[in-house]
Amino acid sequence: MAPSEGAPGLPRAEALPPTGHHPRPDAWGKVLGQTRYVGDLSLPGMLHAALVTSNRASARVRALELSAARSLPEVVAVLTAADVPGANSVGVIFPDQPLLAVDRVRMVGERLALVAARSREAAAAAVGAVRVELDPLPSVHDPVAALAPGAPLVHEGGNLIRTFQVVRGDVARHFRRATVVFEAEYRIGGQEHAYLEPQGCLAVPEGRQRVTVYASCQCPFYVQQAVARVLGLSLAAVRVIQTPTGGGFGGKEDYPSEPAACAALLAWHTGLPVRLVYSRETDMQLSSKRHAMVVRHRWGANGAGKLCFAEVETFMDAGAYVGLSTVVAERANVSAIGPYHVPAVRVRTHVVYTNNLFGGAFRGFGAPQVSVAGEATMDALARRLGLDPVEFRRRNVLDDRRRTTCTGTRLERPVLARQCLERAVELAATTPPVAAGRGEKVGTGVGLVLYGCNLHHGGQRLDRSSAVVILQPDGSVVVRVGLTEMGQGLLVAVQTVAAQALGVPPEAVEVCLPDTSTVADSGPTVASRGALAAGRAVLDAVRRLRRRLDPVAAELLHCPPRQVELLGGHARVRGEPERAVPIAQVAAEMAARRIEAIATGWYRSRPRRFDAASGQGGAYDFYAVACHLAQVVVDAELGLVRVARVVAVHDVGRVLHRPALEGQIHGGIVQGMGWATSERLAVREGRLENPSFTDYVIPTASDAPVVEIEAIEGAAGRGPWGSKGIGEPSLIPTPAAVRNAVCDALGIELFELPLVPPVIVAALGQRHPFAWLREQPADEGVGVR
Amino acid sequence: MAPSEGAPGLPRAEALPPTGHHPRPDAWGKVLGQTRYVGDLSLPGMLHAALVTSNRASARVRALELSAARSLPEVVAVLTAADVPGANSVGVIFPDQPLLAVDRVRMVGERLALVAARSREAAAAAVGAVRVELDPLPSVHDPVAALAPGAPLVHEGGNLIRTFQVVRGDVARHFRRATVVFEAEYRIGGQEHAYLEPQGCLAVPEGRQRVTVYASCQCPFYVQQAVARVLGLSLAAVRVIQTPTGGGFGGKEDYPSEPAACAALLAWHTGLPVRLVYSRETDMQLSSKRHAMVVRHRWGANGAGKLCFAEVETFMDAGAYVGLSTVVAERANVSAIGPYHVPAVRVRTHVVYTNNLFGGAFRGFGAPQVSVAGEATMDALARRLGLDPVEFRRRNVLDDRRRTTCTGTRLERPVLARQCLERAVELAATTPPVAAGRGEKVGTGVGLVLYGCNLHHGGQRLDRSSAVVILQPDGSVVVRVGLTEMGQGLLVAVQTVAAQALGVPPEAVEVCLPDTSTVADSGPTVASRGALAAGRAVLDAVRRLRRRLDPVAAELLHCPPRQVELLGGHARVRGEPERAVPIAQVAAEMAARRIEAIATGWYRSRPRRFDAASGQGGAYDFYAVACHLAQVVVDAELGLVRVARVVAVHDVGRVLHRPALEGQIHGGIVQGMGWATSERLAVREGRLENPSFTDYVIPTASDAPVVEIEAIEGAAGRGPWGSKGIGEPSLIPTPAAVRNAVCDALGIELFELPLVPPVIVAALGQRHPFAWLREQPADEGVGVR
Repeated sequence: MAPSEGAPGLPRAEALPPTGHHPRPDAWGKVLGQTRYVGDLSLPGMLHAALVTSNRASARVRALELSAARSLPEVVAVLTAADVPGANSVGVIFPDQPLLAVDRVRMVGERLALVAARSREAAAAAVGAVRVELDPLPSVHDPVAALAPGAPLVHEGGNLIRTFQVVRGDVARHFRRATVVFEAEYRIGGQEHAYLEPQGCLAVPEGRQRVTVYASCQCPFYVQQAVARVLGLSLAAVRVIQTPTGGGFGGKEDYPSEPAACAALLAWHTGLPVRLVYSRETDMQLSSKRHAMVVRHRWGANGAGKLCFAEVETFMDAGAYVGLSTVVAERANVSAIGPYHVPAVRVRTHVVYTNNLFGGAFRGFGAPQVSVAGEATMDALARRLGLDPVEFRRRNVLDDRRRTTCTGTRLERPVLARQCLERAVELAATTPPVAAGRGEKVGTGVGLVLYGCNLHHGGQRLDRSSAVVILQPDGSVVVRVGLTEMGQGLLVAVQTVAAQALGVPPEAVEVCLPDTSTVADSGPTVASRGALAAGRAVLDAVRRLRRRLDPVAAELLHCPPRQVELLGGHARVRGEPERAVPIAQVAAEMAARRIEAIATGWYRSRPRRFDAASGQGGAYDFYAVACHLAQVVVDAELGLVRVARVVAVHDVGRVLHRPALEGQIHGGIVQGMGWATSERLAVREGRLENPSFTDYVIPTASDAPVVEIEAIEGAAGRGPWGSKGIGEPSLIPTPAAVRNAVCDALGIELFELPLVPPVIVAALGQRHPFAWLREQPADEGVGVR
Repeated sequence: MAPSEGAPGLPRAEALPPTGHHPRPDAWGKVLGQTRYVGDLSLPGMLHAALVTSNRASARVRALELSAARSLPEVVAVLTAADVPGANSVGVIFPDQPLLAVDRVRMVGERLALVAARSREAAAAAVGAVRVELDPLPSVHDPVAALAPGAPLVHEGGNLIRTFQVVRGDVARHFRRATVVFEAEYRIGGQEHAYLEPQGCLAVPEGRQRVTVYASCQCPFYVQQAVARVLGLSLAAVRVIQTPTGGGFGGKEDYPSEPAACAALLAWHTGLPVRLVYSRETDMQLSSKRHAMVVRHRWGANGAGKLCFAEVETFMDAGAYVGLSTVVAERANVSAIGPYHVPAVRVRTHVVYTNNLFGGAFRGFGAPQVSVAGEATMDALARRLGLDPVEFRRRNVLDDRRRTTCTGTRLERPVLARQCLERAVELAATTPPVAAGRGEKVGTGVGLVLYGCNLHHGGQRLDRSSAVVILQPDGSVVVRVGLTEMGQGLLVAVQTVAAQALGVPPEAVEVCLPDTSTVADSGPTVASRGALAAGRAVLDAVRRLRRRLDPVAAELLHCPPRQVELLGGHARVRGEPERAVPIAQVAAEMAARRIEAIATGWYRSRPRRFDAASGQGGAYDFYAVACHLAQVVVDAELGLVRVARVVAVHDVGRVLHRPALEGQIHGGIVQGMGWATSERLAVREGRLENPSFTDYVIPTASDAPVVEIEAIEGAAGRGPWGSKGIGEPSLIPTPAAVRNAVCDALGIELFELPLVPPVIVAALGQRHPFAWLREQPADEGVGVR
């Protein structure tokens, strides 16, 4: 029933295969410009879709006048909610979000009508010709304000969506033991995913019976479910094929279901292929964002420099619809304390409706926000105690002896948090100091995080994956998985795993982008689980394939099947490497004998229990730690931050493919740095005022710091050959490290992110030095509100 | 190792599921014009390909002047044999055929150079600008003449490619027992496949690493192999996706590998997508044809109306390259005697090179030609013996007592040849007589055939197939197979089988067109094996899937897993139909428990032995019989034949889907009738002079006869639920029946096919009545040459 459950994927009694270094299979196509993204696809008769959206954050829809648009030349269809044959619902978890608004809108960019026309220009003209009459309603744009009595209601049931908690130990008791208590409110901004390729899809109908959707997406099975729901079709009647995807970062997790449902609805009505590709401006205005959060802390430590208690209360701005916010909140909730031993913990995480753009999945999934706060507070406490921030962390970090997290999970040994920290400090010490120019100040900061690998307990039901492996008669291999490549390196990871498991060169393995009609639902490509989930399913498929392959090889080798090993392009007799036949010969023999050379593979994680009321239990399947040490140069006049260097030490379990791993770490650092320093979403009354890369400033290559990477392979994860995910842990420590480095450079505390120049200049103007920290006697008050 | 080998695919202890009648899943798209054929596909930057071909049947290539073509605007590439990175070879069995001619050409239409340009017009202009200088060489255009000493050699090794034989019994001895001996030479013409959609494909490169080919084809795995060979890529690096295919009939078995290799080569060189779609004229001139044959007979019978011996010598015109000719010859060779008991048999089938268009696969695969001859000789002998043709067949037909074929195969009981014959006669008797106008003559003819189901012994290594079945969480089902839909109804057959096996409605099952990256090599879609091979693999996949499904259903039903049956959309307790849960609920439960709901399935036929020298052994896995009775009206003045009515009685084993079965029989009859009466390939010096549907006359709907069908389900085949193939047996008896009916109407013998008006008028002018039959004393001479 569950062949792979809990299995570590380690080859029996075999040495670990070597780490991959070969070129990524998708590299040449991308470098040469040959890769065809969905915007490059067209079909005869294809229509272009566009959206009529709300320009108000909260309003009642008085009228939608469509006739003028419908009578325009080249316009083929103008649809509203009344034209939805299935359910007018696109919420991925909770059905609070219509595909098309019915009588009210709750955010800027909410869809009112869909247009399909023979050209992009005609579609745009039709959008302009739709007369929308909206009666404004009160709106709310701050998650704390949204919980105040009398706040405008975004939905009828109230603005508090849900509160998550972690309750561990007796805070009141440990509060009394604290000699220093630090209290603060951090205001952490959202982030735009800034994938290079905007949202896009192409829906191709076959009558009203079935539809194929080509989509730039992370989660084709989510798209499949949404389109089936909206059109009232069976899942089998909706085929979703991932097109090469130019970046995701979570922004193509839940959101692509929405444009896909729009295009599919238009295709269903018109009987023609419909392509919907967003402009950058539309994309930035409409799509989900990293959640803005308000994080309130009260943490205390004793004179020995040991943490006594930690209270965290987080207000998460979900925006107008739940989307994935509750799931993001679960990770934020259990990640709030970091890799530290704290005897008493109280975390509350409130998910709150506002009329802002809606928050969604974003690399790190709530953890970066709370990690910035947690690591900031760690620094603040260290300074209060007169300790070096690294030393303070040393005294509190989880290790092999003290290895129970705030959720009561005992981490598996070895716990490498201390090693990551020490190694980062060592590496930083061996590099020459960063040079500062006139008026510049140099600082160093640390970000140390504990990453719960794979899906949170609440997402366990999604944590499975399917693979199909086909050995071709010439010994080459086709691999199908249900997880997506979006630039992160899934293809090369899966290629490496399949090649190593079958003992063939990686060039012999072709890994296809997912197509929902080729494998079983494999869940989402999120939570740094891609290589783990796809790789484990591939290993399972190879294991099954070898039940048929090994006997053939054994016959050719004149040995028992259990003696067969696959290595270096050959089937060999274990322990007698000179007795070998090429795998191509074994494959040819299987073909000649008409032996089935295809197998499915399956992965699912071990089931875990978690108590939502106390936040105690198996939050994650296993954990990784990471430490980033950032060195920054700050222009104290202009408030400009330059991140000069980041040392990144990661507990990765096992390196599957070194360039891909390092690429992820480089990218995570740069994206985290951008969020921490320059990427400010200017949201005003729910409208994004800087929806362009001119005004929303992402780092360029020239802004990238020098990066030094060390991957520690000591602790076995549950990915192939003990590997752990790297997609998110590569980003999470950076913003904390950068923020702490800037504070170190300037000698002040900063409670806002991103640290754009106005924030720094304002803070410098207020000149809150570290002495600004309120020193207050410990008292009985528990809770920050 | 071979789970399905020899298994009959019958559900254990369950009643046969009902025959399907639901609409074909591909019907609406085709009827509404929404189906997208390869000619409807385009991609940005796509180039159009065209071929520079020989206009001579045999010549040495003196010069190919390409520079003018290369310098034309919009022309991107002009390639020759020198540009082939892999093997310049496209022969499907034997490497005698280059993709691009090197120094000599052997047929009209042989490829000399390839062009890719930004428009079709530019590509055509470039073809026109290539200066080809050919030095004519002697050529040969008749397979008998080609074997004469001193005939021009098509290839250096001589013109005889191979001779196949059947040697059974002592012909000399049985010759002496014959009282009548009939000797004749039949000249049977070729046939154009006349699929509605001409050959076409679109090759999309990814650098020089891999290529995806979208092709109108029957055999995507053949295309994959050819493209990999020509480009020097691994099989995994070549992905072939069948596009909706507008007819095949064998014409898209081997041939599509050639245009696909051309397009892929151009794509490989240019780095751009390249589409190659033939015009009708190009298609008719270049593509393979049904083989023209010269069939010589000497058959004898005794005074009791029993066949004594049969000698057949066939000369098959292979054209300039082997292609599939040897394989076609194998079927022709063993089919030459028909479903009759003959004590002594000698068959020789010569495969001969000529400089004509090359012969290839065509529905019936050599059997229609020899069946026309066999059934003509049966009629001739009957008349010599003063017996009614039906009565003569009654006395000689194989049945349960006398059931050994000419290849020494003992047919499985029940042998239904007699039943088919009698039932056809009965049915014809109950219908009103055909009315003849002034100057018209009415006749009736019978065609009785024994069809060797599935691939011939020589093709056993190809006789396997792969399937993937995915149960979706809502109970709908995705099915992937490696066999193609080309209009014959494979999709609906597989849909029916999967639906019945899983107990879900057919609408819940989506069957995808093949993609070589989704299943293992499943062999070709030929030999009426589609429903059998794909269906059996699907049944195997369902069997495996039920290992995981049944326990879940059993838990929901509170019964042991072995008691679970799937029927009517429900999982039920066997024998207690009221204890049932919807299959959708079981599927949802499997999804909730993260149980793998995907399985592969495999089919392979039982291995057989066959002795090529004697033609004795297991020629086929199992057999079907069919009898067609045609009533024709012939205008004796103009020589025009109208087929008024055909009664078709088929031993089908089991009807999977009645409309699809009947559609196949209707189509087979019309295609067979067209070949017998109007479809004449005017080949002159190797050039087709009527490459258009204006001059090459295929029947229209108004020419179609009234067809009465009876499907006998008595004898179990090895397809799903005992079914047998119908694609070819639906055609094979018709030409024989029509030819015999025309002879009956006119009271003359005809030795040529097709019976176009000039042939009939000429024969009537010669007025060879039946008395023309040479009556000759039996003598010792054996063999017709």
